[in-house]
Amino acid sequence: MLDYRLLQALAAVTAQGGFEKAAVQLHLTQSAVSRRIKQLEAMLGQPVLQRCTPPRPTLAGQRLLNHLQQVRQMEAALGLADQEVQLLRLATNADSLATWLPQALVLPDQPQLCFDLVVEDQSVSLKRMKQGDVMACICDSPQPLNGGAVMPLGALRYRAVASPDFIRRYQLQPLTAKALALAPCLVFSADDALQHRFLQDIAGISPSHVHLCPSSEGFLKAVLAGLGFGLLPELQMQAHFANGDLIDLAPGYFLDTPLYWHHWQTESPLLQQLRLQVLACARRCLVPIG
Amino acid sequence: MLDYRLLQALAAVTAQGGFEKAAVQLHLTQSAVSRRIKQLEAMLGQPVLQRCTPPRPTLAGQRLLNHLQQVRQMEAALGLADQEVQLLRLATNADSLATWLPQALVLPDQPQLCFDLVVEDQSVSLKRMKQGDVMACICDSPQPLNGGAVMPLGALRYRAVASPDFIRRYQLQPLTAKALALAPCLVFSADDALQHRFLQDIAGISPSHVHLCPSSEGFLKAVLAGLGFGLLPELQMQAHFANGDLIDLAPGYFLDTPLYWHHWQTESPLLQQLRLQVLACARRCLVPIG
Repeated sequence: MLDYRLLQALAAVTAQGGFEKAAVQLHLTQSAVSRRIKQLEAMLGQPVLQRCTPPRPTLAGQRLLNHLQQVRQMEAALGLADQEVQLLRLATNADSLATWLPQALVLPDQPQLCFDLVVEDQSVSLKRMKQGDVMACICDSPQPLNGGAVMPLGALRYRAVASPDFIRRYQLQPLTAKALALAPCLVFSADDALQHRFLQDIAGISPSHVHLCPSSEGFLKAVLAGLGFGLLPELQMQAHFANGDLIDLAPGYFLDTPLYWHHWQTESPLLQQLRLQVLACARRCLVPIG
Repeated sequence: MLDYRLLQALAAVTAQGGFEKAAVQLHLTQSAVSRRIKQLEAMLGQPVLQRCTPPRPTLAGQRLLNHLQQVRQMEAALGLADQEVQLLRLATNADSLATWLPQALVLPDQPQLCFDLVVEDQSVSLKRMKQGDVMACICDSPQPLNGGAVMPLGALRYRAVASPDFIRRYQLQPLTAKALALAPCLVFSADDALQHRFLQDIAGISPSHVHLCPSSEGFLKAVLAGLGFGLLPELQMQAHFANGDLIDLAPGYFLDTPLYWHHWQTESPLLQQLRLQVLACARRCLVPIG
């Protein structure tokens, strides 16, 4: 039988991003945490952590973390963890967290549940789950992991918008390829290709002038202030369309980002309850996947 | 004289987080980028990059990046970089980017300016500037860097709030230490101590039940949905106070986060223009530093 205190040390170092913080979380000294990791490595005959900053699990370490997570969920299903705080680490894309997701996370009859939300681009969050780092994730891949299951949630619909002042300044009405080529655009991160796809579809060009703004709310505020145009979730801007703060650059044009909920096949009753509530909420807020 | 193509390779690897992306940015092959880094190291007789994922500059590398940044700014001041896109990498705390900062970044007479905004906790963003990774930063430290200068912006004022439904569910009106001890709170990240300070000040306790939510807009939405209470910037919630969506848990109680603008003493005219506009905007939106 494995010594689960060793696996808990590995999980804490990975989750906290270092030995020192892991020691605080586990109420141990740093050298005790370090000893547990070495014991684990001696047992396996290979490293479980890459010693960079922050430390990352090796492939062998990832397999152990996955296993630990499944054991924890099975314990929860036995009702053995009922009285203590149950931590649920969930990866989500930033725009879901800024719009429809928070209301889906309130489970008043589960006061012991604490969320640790991790924000990742929808194209990469599945990796975090594969690494055993999160217990469920919202991402754009319909392919379940080995031992995992997947459920379609719906799609976030994005429209290309700008402020009236920005549209005047860059002469974007009517919309021409020449004017678009000179107008700066906002991009959320290096993983965000929505603006590139829009410019390609509408004008056959690549963006020449880009502001990187890795914040959902900052992105909206920057478009409102006239720093650039950008593709925003419909959910985030209905009020702004109504009062004329934002104008749809290409009415009728939209890009949908499909979203899926990934979980492990061995699902605790608590996770199942959460999943069904998330699904109900997604059905109300998102558009069907095309 | 230094070969600045080598320094540009170092800057690209650090900024892009890898050799492959740096190669794309510089329109070079990956092996050409790698060769330039090695040439730099051969010249200095010591490594300029730590080879972890993502690669980070060594102390020697940081000094070179700082130097490169200052040279770029001096070139900009000579007017030599006028025609090309000028990239300004700026570190800011998430709540500034979600509230008052975006409107301060619009400089219509500087169409060549592109922002690369980096979100960091106000307590750590100064490190990014010291590493030569950003050209200016907004943080909570009044101490200028060596070769740097600093300007006070004002303070973000936070109040402890919750939704009416949450207050009923956890019996927080009137506010008692016993009720607070059972109520879950939201925390932005491991660096966010505002909720801990509030609980200590009001009830002499530590939070027992924490949801981690690293998104300014997600944090607000989660408080509105009743997932927990939390300390939010006044700027973000005035409308919600007015319509009764949010209630101040401890009227009269607030925590101020002072914010300062850090820049290098060799400041280009463009950066100066931006700094003065940011200051004017901060004066309108923030409270004076107490």
